[in-house]
Amino acid sequence: MGGDHGPAVMIGGAAEALTALAGRDVAFILHGDSDAIARELQRAPALKACAEVRHTALKIAGDEKPAQALRRGKGSSLWNAVQSVKDGEAAAAVSGGNTGALMAISKLQLRMAEGFDRPAIVASWPTTQGVTAVLDVGANIECDAKQLVEFAIMGEAFYRAVHRRSGARPSVGLLNVGSEDQKGHEDVREAHQLLKDLDLALDYRGFVEGNDIAKGTVDVVVTDGFTGNIALKTGEGLARFFAQEIQSAFASSTLAKVGFFLAAPALRRMRARLEPPGGGPLLGLNGIVVKSHGGAAPSGVADAIRIAADLAASDYASEAGLNRERLAQGLKGPQTSLETSG
Amino acid sequence: MGGDHGPAVMIGGAAEALTALAGRDVAFILHGDSDAIARELQRAPALKACAEVRHTALKIAGDEKPAQALRRGKGSSLWNAVQSVKDGEAAAAVSGGNTGALMAISKLQLRMAEGFDRPAIVASWPTTQGVTAVLDVGANIECDAKQLVEFAIMGEAFYRAVHRRSGARPSVGLLNVGSEDQKGHEDVREAHQLLKDLDLALDYRGFVEGNDIAKGTVDVVVTDGFTGNIALKTGEGLARFFAQEIQSAFASSTLAKVGFFLAAPALRRMRARLEPPGGGPLLGLNGIVVKSHGGAAPSGVADAIRIAADLAASDYASEAGLNRERLAQGLKGPQTSLETSG
Repeated sequence: MGGDHGPAVMIGGAAEALTALAGRDVAFILHGDSDAIARELQRAPALKACAEVRHTALKIAGDEKPAQALRRGKGSSLWNAVQSVKDGEAAAAVSGGNTGALMAISKLQLRMAEGFDRPAIVASWPTTQGVTAVLDVGANIECDAKQLVEFAIMGEAFYRAVHRRSGARPSVGLLNVGSEDQKGHEDVREAHQLLKDLDLALDYRGFVEGNDIAKGTVDVVVTDGFTGNIALKTGEGLARFFAQEIQSAFASSTLAKVGFFLAAPALRRMRARLEPPGGGPLLGLNGIVVKSHGGAAPSGVADAIRIAADLAASDYASEAGLNRERLAQGLKGPQTSLETSG
Repeated sequence: MGGDHGPAVMIGGAAEALTALAGRDVAFILHGDSDAIARELQRAPALKACAEVRHTALKIAGDEKPAQALRRGKGSSLWNAVQSVKDGEAAAAVSGGNTGALMAISKLQLRMAEGFDRPAIVASWPTTQGVTAVLDVGANIECDAKQLVEFAIMGEAFYRAVHRRSGARPSVGLLNVGSEDQKGHEDVREAHQLLKDLDLALDYRGFVEGNDIAKGTVDVVVTDGFTGNIALKTGEGLARFFAQEIQSAFASSTLAKVGFFLAAPALRRMRARLEPPGGGPLLGLNGIVVKSHGGAAPSGVADAIRIAADLAASDYASEAGLNRERLAQGLKGPQTSLETSG
């Protein structure tokens, strides 16, 4: 029921995902208003054949605060989707709903994986090199140094699980306004120091800047949720602007129109590559939850479902294990010696 | 001498600006190594005819800290350029050098305009509507609520002075991760409250999100220098990525190549529209200083010089006056009543 356009786009997206995931064993549990869902399923017979509908009339509004959603959200479509992961009925939950509510309800039901404080949302950006994973893109407005280090560990494990390229460990960078050690605010400098000093199995490359995201300088870009959200949305806005400008460039003369016609297949392929990420998993939980960035296009929802399926088929949870332990050890180390000396 | 490529790009940019500003009464004072400058001027006879060279061997390195630049920067090319504004010889200074040093030296020499605490760098983004001015894009890593309000006042006055469209007052938005009042961190929420409560002559529209920058939802987008810098550089990186993708889309087949050939003029016009801003003025000072974002292209330097010329020809300083006074009154108001009641 989530997202700006409810069942129409969510179910359109599920149908699109089913086609994209052909050959993989995928089935859906659809939570929400059964009448509205049934109407949409008429247009998607293949999805209908592998989908089970679980009715609920309750839904969480887009502007509800997380605390409110926790109080009165039980039994809502969002709640039930997460619950089905907790109960082991579903391998992953995908929601286009209220991000704050999704995070709070997921945390309450699934709990954080040991060693992690808070979930982070990760976005996978297309780049000239392949994909850059950026996190957090909106779950945590303020993040301290330790959280940023946790994000680095989560993000690296996610990258290995989902975007792994043969052999090499994913490289990790910390988003900042310059590459020198003294740049940025205190939390980002402290996280930089921790990532250099802690004995993590992590290919940490230091600070990166905004332009490094699209350049693909590193595989994983770590930042707080305020900055990450604004970078992601700035990018989405620009992508839309570029698409409009290309369209009007080609409509500007008859020759350009002919040119557009001839280049259409190449441009379509390019357009698909420039599409901003349609979904971002909430990392750090005991269970897989993917936020679909929603908007108007079913393709975004389909993208989120594809990521959920990839994550469910991966060994993400164990990938983060070793570094989680080293972080706990590394942070305990100095504290213990402080207690001893004090 | 500033920027990644020194005199070649800076002087190439000045020559390009001279052509673009044809018909306007423009002359240059070029500060730096006179031999290196003379070599470059040979290729630019029109510029040579209206340029005066002021030799100095001293220059500030890109990685020098502001405090260090203040101590040993006197007599450097950057210092002398700002000095020539202070002395009334130049209407504006343009530099491609170290941003922190430029800010510190400008603040020391020109002083802040009354009522403003710190300078902010403003970037003018192309949008579907025209131009969106974003500030701060890198001068201040951490900003409190009052500074954000000052940026709103500076940015709005800048917009009226340089990008004014007949009649309407520029609209102003505060960059955040959502549009509801309770979103974001404390400073941004407090600034939102001040902008709503203070009796400023400002068309304040509330919170905007990252995608609103390219959409042109408001004319002036206010943010702290950390977030603004990362948004700007993320956008620059994406613009470069898009340009590469268009190029390879058109190289991907013979038909596409023919298409590209036919659409070339339209694509060139589009490319120019997508160019990220080449320069950003430091607002809030008693004098005009423009940071050229440098990079490899003379066109960026030319853009910075054009902005400096527009700003010098405008009445920017007086545009901000009324709101500066109202801000001072508004902030003093509650304090006074506090004293009375205490």
